[in-house]
Formats: sequence, structure tokens, C-alpha cells
Amino acid sequence: MVPAFFKNKILLASQSPRRQQLLRDSGFDMDVVRIDVEEDFHPDLRAEEIPLYLAEKKNKAYELAIQDNEILVTADTVVWLDDGVLNKPADMDEAGSMLRQLSGKVHTVYTAVCARTARDKILFSEASKVYFNDLSDEMIDYYLSYYKPLDKAGAYGIQEFIGYVAIKRIEGCYYNVMGFPVSRFIEEIRKHGW
Amino acid sequence: MVPAFFKNKILLASQSPRRQQLLRDSGFDMDVVRIDVEEDFHPDLRAEEIPLYLAEKKNKAYELAIQDNEILVTADTVVWLDDGVLNKPADMDEAGSMLRQLSGKVHTVYTAVCARTARDKILFSEASKVYFNDLSDEMIDYYLSYYKPLDKAGAYGIQEFIGYVAIKRIEGCYYNVMGFPVSRFIEEIRKHGW
Repeated sequence: MVPAFFKNKILLASQSPRRQQLLRDSGFDMDVVRIDVEEDFHPDLRAEEIPLYLAEKKNKAYELAIQDNEILVTADTVVWLDDGVLNKPADMDEAGSMLRQLSGKVHTVYTAVCARTARDKILFSEASKVYFNDLSDEMIDYYLSYYKPLDKAGAYGIQEFIGYVAIKRIEGCYYNVMGFPVSRFIEEIRKHGW
Repeated sequence: MVPAFFKNKILLASQSPRRQQLLRDSGFDMDVVRIDVEEDFHPDLRAEEIPLYLAEKKNKAYELAIQDNEILVTADTVVWLDDGVLNKPADMDEAGSMLRQLSGKVHTVYTAVCARTARDKILFSEASKVYFNDLSDEMIDYYLSYYKPLDKAGAYGIQEFIGYVAIKRIEGCYYNVMGFPVSRFIEEIRKHGW
């Protein structure tokens, strides 16, 4: 068991196993907390405005006290393609349709993070560009059959089959595409002396 | 158990657990084979010339017959920084020294792949740029204490603590930095009708 590297404890309000694993393996002591909030947003919001709004909204909805050595962390990830947003797909049909839209194109993944201590707050968003090769119908069917696209923005996980075989290039932070921009987060908490 | 996606079987001549996992999770049926060869190269070789030379050298050293549905794959990864190469560190002191050299800088990771069937051969190299944040002595000590830098070119794994906390940006294929440019490899074998 590797001991924690950072002194403050993260209260992570996310059910995403990727975010939980990323923060643990980055050397944080971490508890997962639950926040129930409607994840709706005004249709005029665009690109990073959407996750910035949702990450802050989730953060504000936490009602318990934050202790001196704790940082409450909320995050939201969206896939932005051709001037529109791809959220989590509602079903396998929509997942297949999203993958066909992403095929052969470049999209941007935005993850926003809102972090709050007892005294202070940080809110930022990080962008990564992702270049997809053409996806064959067979690749899409295989991915939908053996993986779980429904809890993922844009219906794909970069750390799974479809990311291995079809993502030829990224520009930006890889972990941002997985759902949490770890190195930017650490830079921000250091700047704030947390 | 997820069935294989690709029809040909890979004979992978690499002891790297990252390469083995990347190819398996990309949907290849795979056997690991052993090739013993000296990994030395002429000191005049530069940048991608080094892994191209070594990947081909390893491939040529395989003496068994390759069957019709098999692809023999060899690969080599180097880290290229400030006009010089970082190989696998010889010991923990050298690993620490490499990490201090990488700190706050941009380097390039080159992975070359040589793939051979009974009839044909492919050789290519893929480049990824990696941007490191400043590493503190504490981060380096923690990484050396709890992770295994000695089997990794440049003494780091992008998929571990040091990659999470310190790599702010990449330009290129992430899996190339891990040791195998999967999507480029698949593009190449499709071009050749393998």
C-alpha cells in the first residue's frame, strides 16, 4: 500500500471510477461523497461554459461542513464536436450514433473542476483536442458489445479498446480526456498553498 | 473474456508488460516470444534512428518460421531530450538524475515498430512530445520509492504517479509514450491488408 503524497484529503463528489482511481494514484488520500443535483444547464451555454457551470453547481450543492485539511472536489466532462455537445448517451443506439459522429474527426474534451476548502474556492477548465481515425462498423459494434459506453461523455473511454485502436493523436492532457486534469489540479492547489 | 477483434495473431517479442497489455486490450490474439539480442547501437545514431535500428535488429534475430496467420512484432522506445538519448536507467541514482533532467522541460518519445509476416515487413517510428511540469525532490523521491523506474526509458511511466502529477500536455499518441503506438500500428497493418 503506497502512502499518500499530498497532505490534504480530497472529498470527491463523483461516482466515476476513473476519477477516483486517478486521484488515488496521484497520491491523494480520498473519500467519495455523494451530491444529488440535477445536471441540467441552459441551452445557450457553449463548450467549456457547460462543465464550468455544472462543476460549480455540484460544488454549491454540498451542504456539510468542510474541515481544515479537506478539499471538496467536483468535476464535469463534456465532449464538444462540430459546435455541439455530446453528453453521456442514453442507450446503446445513441452510443453508436455518437461514435459514428466522432469517427475520422477532431473533437475537444473539456473537464472543469471546482475545488473548495473551508475558506477558499478554485474553478477552472482544461481543454484537450482528440484526433480520431475512421471507425469501422465492426469496431463500433465490438466496442458496444464488450465495453460500457453509457457512463461516458461522448460514449467512449480513451483508456479502452476504442481509444487504443482509433485515437491517433491528442493535444493536451490525457487524464483530462479520462475525466480529471490531474497535473493542472495540482498546479492550482499549489498556487493557492493548499 | 473478450474475444479477439483482429484475425491475425501477434508474436510479440517484448518483455514489457505495458506492450503486452496494450496489444491484448486492442483486440489482438497474442503470444509473447523471446529474442535475445544485444541492444547496442552506433553512437552516431540520433533520435528515431535508434529505435528504428533496434526494432529491426531484434526482428531479424528471430529465427523460427512465421506462420500464415502470424505477425512477428518487435519494438523499441527511446526518450530524446536536449539532443541526447535517455535509455533505461542502470540504477536508482541514474533514475533520479534522469527525472531531474526531464523536470520542467519538453522531450520527445520515439517508439519504432518492426512487424513481419511470412511474406512482408513493415518498419516505422512514431513521435510524441511530452511536456513536464517542474518536479520537486519530494515527488522524485516518492516515485523512486514506490514505483519501478528501472525498466522504463527515461525512468518514468506516463501511466503512473509521476505521469499523473507532472505531465501537463502531450502532442501525439499517448500509447506511443507508454511503449506502443497502437493506432498507427493498426493503420499500417490495414494498409498492407494483413
